[in-house]
Amino acid sequence: MSEPFVDLGFARVDTDRARRCGFPEVIFGGGKTPEEVVAIGRVLLERNGVLLVSRANAEQHRALAAVFPTARWHERARCLTVELKPWPKAEGTVGVICAGTSDLPVAEEAAVTLEIFGNQVERIADVGVAGVHRLLAVRERLEACHVLIVVAGMEGALPSAVAGLVSKPVIAVPTSVGYGASFGGLAALLGMLNSCGSGVTVVNIDNGFGAAYAAANISRLLSLKPEV
Amino acid sequence: MSEPFVDLGFARVDTDRARRCGFPEVIFGGGKTPEEVVAIGRVLLERNGVLLVSRANAEQHRALAAVFPTARWHERARCLTVELKPWPKAEGTVGVICAGTSDLPVAEEAAVTLEIFGNQVERIADVGVAGVHRLLAVRERLEACHVLIVVAGMEGALPSAVAGLVSKPVIAVPTSVGYGASFGGLAALLGMLNSCGSGVTVVNIDNGFGAAYAAANISRLLSLKPEV
Amino acid sequence: MSEPFVDLGFARVDTDRARRCGFPEVIFGGGKTPEEVVAIGRVLLERNGVLLVSRANAEQHRALAAVFPTARWHERARCLTVELKPWPKAEGTVGVICAGTSDLPVAEEAAVTLEIFGNQVERIADVGVAGVHRLLAVRERLEACHVLIVVAGMEGALPSAVAGLVSKPVIAVPTSVGYGASFGGLAALLGMLNSCGSGVTVVNIDNGFGAAYAAANISRLLSLKPEV
Amino acid sequence: MSEPFVDLGFARVDTDRARRCGFPEVIFGGGKTPEEVVAIGRVLLERNGVLLVSRANAEQHRALAAVFPTARWHERARCLTVELKPWPKAEGTVGVICAGTSDLPVAEEAAVTLEIFGNQVERIADVGVAGVHRLLAVRERLEACHVLIVVAGMEGALPSAVAGLVSKPVIAVPTSVGYGASFGGLAALLGMLNSCGSGVTVVNIDNGFGAAYAAANISRLLSLKPEV
Amino acid sequence: MSEPFVDLGFARVDTDRARRCGFPEVIFGGGKTPEEVVAIGRVLLERNGVLLVSRANAEQHRALAAVFPTARWHERARCLTVELKPWPKAEGTVGVICAGTSDLPVAEEAAVTLEIFGNQVERIADVGVAGVHRLLAVRERLEACHVLIVVAGMEGALPSAVAGLVSKPVIAVPTSVGYGASFGGLAALLGMLNSCGSGVTVVNIDNGFGAAYAAANISRLLSLKPEV
Amino acid sequence: MSEPFVDLGFARVDTDRARRCGFPEVIFGGGKTPEEVVAIGRVLLERNGVLLVSRANAEQHRALAAVFPTARWHERARCLTVELKPWPKAEGTVGVICAGTSDLPVAEEAAVTLEIFGNQVERIADVGVAGVHRLLAVRERLEACHVLIVVAGMEGALPSAVAGLVSKPVIAVPTSVGYGASFGGLAALLGMLNSCGSGVTVVNIDNGFGAAYAAANISRLLSLKPEV
Amino acid sequence: MSEPFVDLGFARVDTDRARRCGFPEVIFGGGKTPEEVVAIGRVLLERNGVLLVSRANAEQHRALAAVFPTARWHERARCLTVELKPWPKAEGTVGVICAGTSDLPVAEEAAVTLEIFGNQVERIADVGVAGVHRLLAVRERLEACHVLIVVAGMEGALPSAVAGLVSKPVIAVPTSVGYGASFGGLAALLGMLNSCGSGVTVVNIDNGFGAAYAAANISRLLSLKPEV
Amino acid sequence: MSEPFVDLGFARVDTDRARRCGFPEVIFGGGKTPEEVVAIGRVLLERNGVLLVSRANAEQHRALAAVFPTARWHERARCLTVELKPWPKAEGTVGVICAGTSDLPVAEEAAVTLEIFGNQVERIADVGVAGVHRLLAVRERLEACHVLIVVAGMEGALPSAVAGLVSKPVIAVPTSVGYGASFGGLAALLGMLNSCGSGVTVVNIDNGFGAAYAAANISRLLSLKPEV
Repeated sequence: MSEPFVDLGFARVDTDRARRCGFPEVIFGGGKTPEEVVAIGRVLLERNGVLLVSRANAEQHRALAAVFPTARWHERARCLTVELKPWPKAEGTVGVICAGTSDLPVAEEAAVTLEIFGNQVERIADVGVAGVHRLLAVRERLEACHVLIVVAGMEGALPSAVAGLVSKPVIAVPTSVGYGASFGGLAALLGMLNSCGSGVTVVNIDNGFGAAYAAANISRLLSLKPEV
Repeated sequence: MSEPFVDLGFARVDTDRARRCGFPEVIFGGGKTPEEVVAIGRVLLERNGVLLVSRANAEQHRALAAVFPTARWHERARCLTVELKPWPKAEGTVGVICAGTSDLPVAEEAAVTLEIFGNQVERIADVGVAGVHRLLAVRERLEACHVLIVVAGMEGALPSAVAGLVSKPVIAVPTSVGYGASFGGLAALLGMLNSCGSGVTVVNIDNGFGAAYAAANISRLLSLKPEV
Repeated sequence: MSEPFVDLGFARVDTDRARRCGFPEVIFGGGKTPEEVVAIGRVLLERNGVLLVSRANAEQHRALAAVFPTARWHERARCLTVELKPWPKAEGTVGVICAGTSDLPVAEEAAVTLEIFGNQVERIADVGVAGVHRLLAVRERLEACHVLIVVAGMEGALPSAVAGLVSKPVIAVPTSVGYGASFGGLAALLGMLNSCGSGVTVVNIDNGFGAAYAAANISRLLSLKPEV
Repeated sequence: MSEPFVDLGFARVDTDRARRCGFPEVIFGGGKTPEEVVAIGRVLLERNGVLLVSRANAEQHRALAAVFPTARWHERARCLTVELKPWPKAEGTVGVICAGTSDLPVAEEAAVTLEIFGNQVERIADVGVAGVHRLLAVRERLEACHVLIVVAGMEGALPSAVAGLVSKPVIAVPTSVGYGASFGGLAALLGMLNSCGSGVTVVNIDNGFGAAYAAANISRLLSLKPEV
Repeated sequence: MSEPFVDLGFARVDTDRARRCGFPEVIFGGGKTPEEVVAIGRVLLERNGVLLVSRANAEQHRALAAVFPTARWHERARCLTVELKPWPKAEGTVGVICAGTSDLPVAEEAAVTLEIFGNQVERIADVGVAGVHRLLAVRERLEACHVLIVVAGMEGALPSAVAGLVSKPVIAVPTSVGYGASFGGLAALLGMLNSCGSGVTVVNIDNGFGAAYAAANISRLLSLKPEV
Repeated sequence: MSEPFVDLGFARVDTDRARRCGFPEVIFGGGKTPEEVVAIGRVLLERNGVLLVSRANAEQHRALAAVFPTARWHERARCLTVELKPWPKAEGTVGVICAGTSDLPVAEEAAVTLEIFGNQVERIADVGVAGVHRLLAVRERLEACHVLIVVAGMEGALPSAVAGLVSKPVIAVPTSVGYGASFGGLAALLGMLNSCGSGVTVVNIDNGFGAAYAAANISRLLSLKPEV
Repeated sequence: MSEPFVDLGFARVDTDRARRCGFPEVIFGGGKTPEEVVAIGRVLLERNGVLLVSRANAEQHRALAAVFPTARWHERARCLTVELKPWPKAEGTVGVICAGTSDLPVAEEAAVTLEIFGNQVERIADVGVAGVHRLLAVRERLEACHVLIVVAGMEGALPSAVAGLVSKPVIAVPTSVGYGASFGGLAALLGMLNSCGSGVTVVNIDNGFGAAYAAANISRLLSLKPEV
Repeated sequence: MSEPFVDLGFARVDTDRARRCGFPEVIFGGGKTPEEVVAIGRVLLERNGVLLVSRANAEQHRALAAVFPTARWHERARCLTVELKPWPKAEGTVGVICAGTSDLPVAEEAAVTLEIFGNQVERIADVGVAGVHRLLAVRERLEACHVLIVVAGMEGALPSAVAGLVSKPVIAVPTSVGYGASFGGLAALLGMLNSCGSGVTVVNIDNGFGAAYAAANISRLLSLKPEV
């Protein structure tokens, strides 16, 4: 059997990921040159038909678009996507809820990731805990989703309140929104880890991508035939 | 004029505090011998008629009760009080709300402090964010108070939710309730400092006494004639 | 409609939780008296037929067993359970994997929680990263589960390795196992939050219960009919 | 009844805040585009007649002034205000005291916030603890206020000294002024939370706005008729 | 020349310290067996005539007193001293000021250290910042000292206030007195390091011994003939 | 008697400092406009004849030099000085020792501060612990000083080694020199606070000024007649 | 081929470790029952002939000695060893140097580990930085070793000084010896990581075992024939 | 004997280092002027024939190349080297393994350092834990090296996995690659310090140079004749 990765010298592209883990490898754009992004992207597109670059920048977009003209630049989400052959549609809907307007970039990173992997996304913005009626007003939309990603900065209390209202898995994403004693998102992160809402799980600060990947993994259970 | 304090050698009792600050000095019981508590207590009772010892223990109670038979031991609040001549009643009501059963000792420390200083207290227990209906059910009782003390551990989200519902000053008390990444109350403290509920102020972890003292200071404005 | 909670004075028992969130409320035993555990437990058993007390102790067990003779004491997991009327069986299997022998208590807390909520559990112990062959040897058992809970202390690297091998949701539980610069589980927590394994989500240090609750929430999707 | 908020897509403006909480919603300018500030501002001005944008910038000012020519730019406070119909005057005076010249921006944010909400402000600058006579010289001016906001960086000792001199509520604002082991205001924050001055409450680092909002909430008690 | 230390196998006693550094080596009692304390003490007493054991316990006292009957046990300071041949008297007076009654053990450790090294000590207790008049009342006694050691827990503000009143060197000792966000003395330590009182220097938390050693070093300058 | 300070509105200049504390007030340049520096500087020069501005910049220099042509700009030390009437010469010599070349700016801030206050300075550069012979080579020069300021970044070990060699007071200044786990000077600060060299005292990270002020305070004892 | 581990249910004993990594698996005694230690020990002894249990206790010793009468209890090192068939002698000598008497338990853990793995150990105790002559006195003994383990608490400066004197690999072990701002060994750990002595590597706080394992790995190079 | 260092005023160049420690002194370029680099470099080149400047910049390169035309600028490694007379070749091979593409600069700093000191380097890039097959594929190349440097950011799990596969010394280098809760490399650092892979030692975050220096020290043992 051939090697399950392609060695580009500066990187070993994991071409076996989709078979093993269900989704193809994703490029973390931070700190990579446009040339490196194109080289890795070429390998991944050939195998998988779709490509996602997170933490990307405009320069990487220009380089990628020169080779793959359909490359899209999602500015707010700081993501690049290419869809030569769209990924199969997933069952179910993933809700992406954010607490404040400043949390939108992280929420968009999650939404773009979900969409490239074939998930349907329900976006709900600016649902803070300090105005509980705004949360109660969307309760039915929340319950109608199959998985919920809740994005919040500052004290990060929204996931607790959401988890107490619905029966669906809740993935919390702390953001670095805030100042002073938010310590770059630490306050929100600790708040979410100590959530009194049972069953909340948490990803790294500003990690919209990771939350989306986990949600997509969960959503896939909807199409499985359990073997109990 | 005589010195505004009494020098006991090991302590300089601030006998001028009530005149300057509105309330008499309070003994922090932690690390003091029963004899020291009695000696300082004697001086304070003589001037003020009332005495509060916070972070007290049973041994200090026995020593104090031997001299002042009406000394009361508030076990859950870990407080000692003596009322030879009750402090004048304050106007208004202070609400003391706690998020979970485990937060009760801190809430009780606040309540006992308020009562010895003449404040009427409204106690509301176990009002967590992960069951918002329990909070909405007490909204009118909250608004009927003049100042609110909100006690919570874990992620400390309750003050934000309360502050978004009412128009009264909210003082948040983080507690050390929790484990792991609560880091002894740090998570709750940071959550409250980053509260998205405008106007929440915060005291030290487990500091029910400090919150009560601040609330009593605020309540006193109810009986002031503004000089605008 | 009647109030969706029962007010015991010291606690407001959320009797509506199972309807709203899918599972009944669970008692956090830490800091509660045996009498409080029995009083809350009585209310919850009446509504739900099953009861779980986490972070419980032997004294609470004796008090509960005096009233409910079938109460079971899970020593290693520090949990109490009562099953008057077992919760409906869930579809699918949840894998509970732990990195070292010392992580077993947290793993057991997860397993007991899953079982009381009707989930089938696959236990896999002592699968450290520093002996990768031990992990590869169980790869098929891992992939056969529908959700994976991975429990690890020290540097917390196991979830990354597991997530790179399988296509199922991975919930990571850092434990306080370790010493020195493990800082009570902080090293493992940070390691898991920064996992290079895409899609790993994390709960609080030593929070086996929370991971199990999340896994049960996820498993339930197996029996849902998606409405896309 | 109509919805108590206006959904702009990117934000849900809480138009019910003034009724519920006593003051209208305030825009946190940080991270918002000029267009977003104008859109939200328009909604809020229509309902409330006054507008405050904190952490604003000159570009937001230009955009807002193009629509509301009376928009004012408070440079030192980094605030924008518009007063189409001034907010009713509050009773009492709020003192804003700062420890050093470098703390002035935070103190000004507090003062501007208070004034837009109808409060009379007494400004007292550069009253450090390392020259106690400067503090004693203003003691009477402090006591004449009804609420005190004390702004300090470095070791944050001023609130303790102030609280020991007067009988009025003291709200402490730590600032990020300092270097090295001030750790961005952490030293001042911890100092204030551990204040030996009874009854000091604290807000987030550099949060002049929050302190002012709390002080305005407290001041309002001056015009209440207690219902004891 | 003989080796400037005595090798006891488990310890190399620095017998040259007094010549090099001005004062003999001191035994840190923590973690040493009574036998080790006696063995090291014997060597040091033979060379220097005086002995100080800090962080000592009663058992070490009994062992030492069996050999050196004049050994004294300073309970509050947790120190042991033996004076076979008193150390020469130093010129000048060192003031040891403490902020609260709970800071007395650390202050006493400083005082006992100073006295064994021949310094005259002026003890001033319970001089908190939250009652500035208590500080002003001792201003002349402070100025009459040649060096000042200021011991304080909680927010550690006293050294700043003292340094602003006098022209003498101020050594600040943070103590672990406090709870919650005092984080074992960290708040006091950071406060003192960020002191706005120019020229304050700081030692480790609870390190009364170190402050005394530094003060004794400074006092010695009083008897030097400068060679400018 | 006139007020012991001059109120400039934005600042209250402490004109009584030299009488109380031995040295005139010093301007912290950070965050002050050139105009503010000139205004405060004018008041201080009128009373004291000398002026020091720490953390100054070139723009402040130009503004000050326009009014006081003899203003000097010490670039490496980031200090401004004006000497209209030099401060009286102090007795003794202060050694300023630094561990590495990168620590020189902090060492120079200390040296400039000492010189403006009339102290003679002995500069010794690049004396690291990882080459003990470089330290031993200067032992006699160290002992010939009356006070020692030791400046070091990274692990901050130099003060311990110096304190073990000499009998003079040692003031340690941690610097922010380093990267990674130096955490902006925290490693050096903690190292110095835990120094095994008895009697080392410590100031804030990069605080050359504070160390110099303390050293000048100590040096003054050389000219005092003790009143024992 | 048979499985390279033995599955005891609660543990998977890595019987292939010696082949892969050069040394057999070691039991971490902390948190294991005596029965578990014996069961795992039996498997390891059968394959390897030697056994090391670190962080062991007396109860584990009794259980192990009942089965293997030659089991030795190293009290200070808190280690258990059994040597049925001694491990082959290694070439070279490993020096184990400790800074103070309180660091001896960690140093002994290192020494016992080295000896069971066939290494010759040179022990050098109480060589502090604050008495450089004690270090210089052993310089030749240090250089004569092939690898050096340097154990130190407090500020952890000894490895830097040692690394500057010799040409051999230096492994630094921070210990939790100290108090206050040593923060359980954090100060020593950070000091060592920032060592100005080139080439110092560091292990976890109190991890004498890990340093010894690394040193044994290094020593083995002495008997290798390089294949360059 | 002449002084074992050259005093340039701003620096004391340790010209004795190569004799004492085996390798010449290396210039840390950070914060040094081009002139300082050239002046120190000149002294070191004269004695040693080779020069390494770490954390260098292009400006320093231009200045050095003007004097030593063969000076090489290693851009990715941020290093400058000059080889007038190459250092003797060392026996053995050092493997430099990195976990991700973004860790390459730190890995290159290690490789350049090793090569200037005469070591042969085997570079292996992009071997993450989340794709264990990529690691297993290089197992034989790893075992063929004599010392291994493992560079990783994020959770820093790679060294544990490597140490569990081979019998060679492993030096772990955490990098600051990551975001959010990686806290500038802290997560990777803690992960490596708590490694379950026995015998892993660690250097400072991003300290490729230090790891290389240690590895070179270890490699030298290959050419030693043990004197057991």
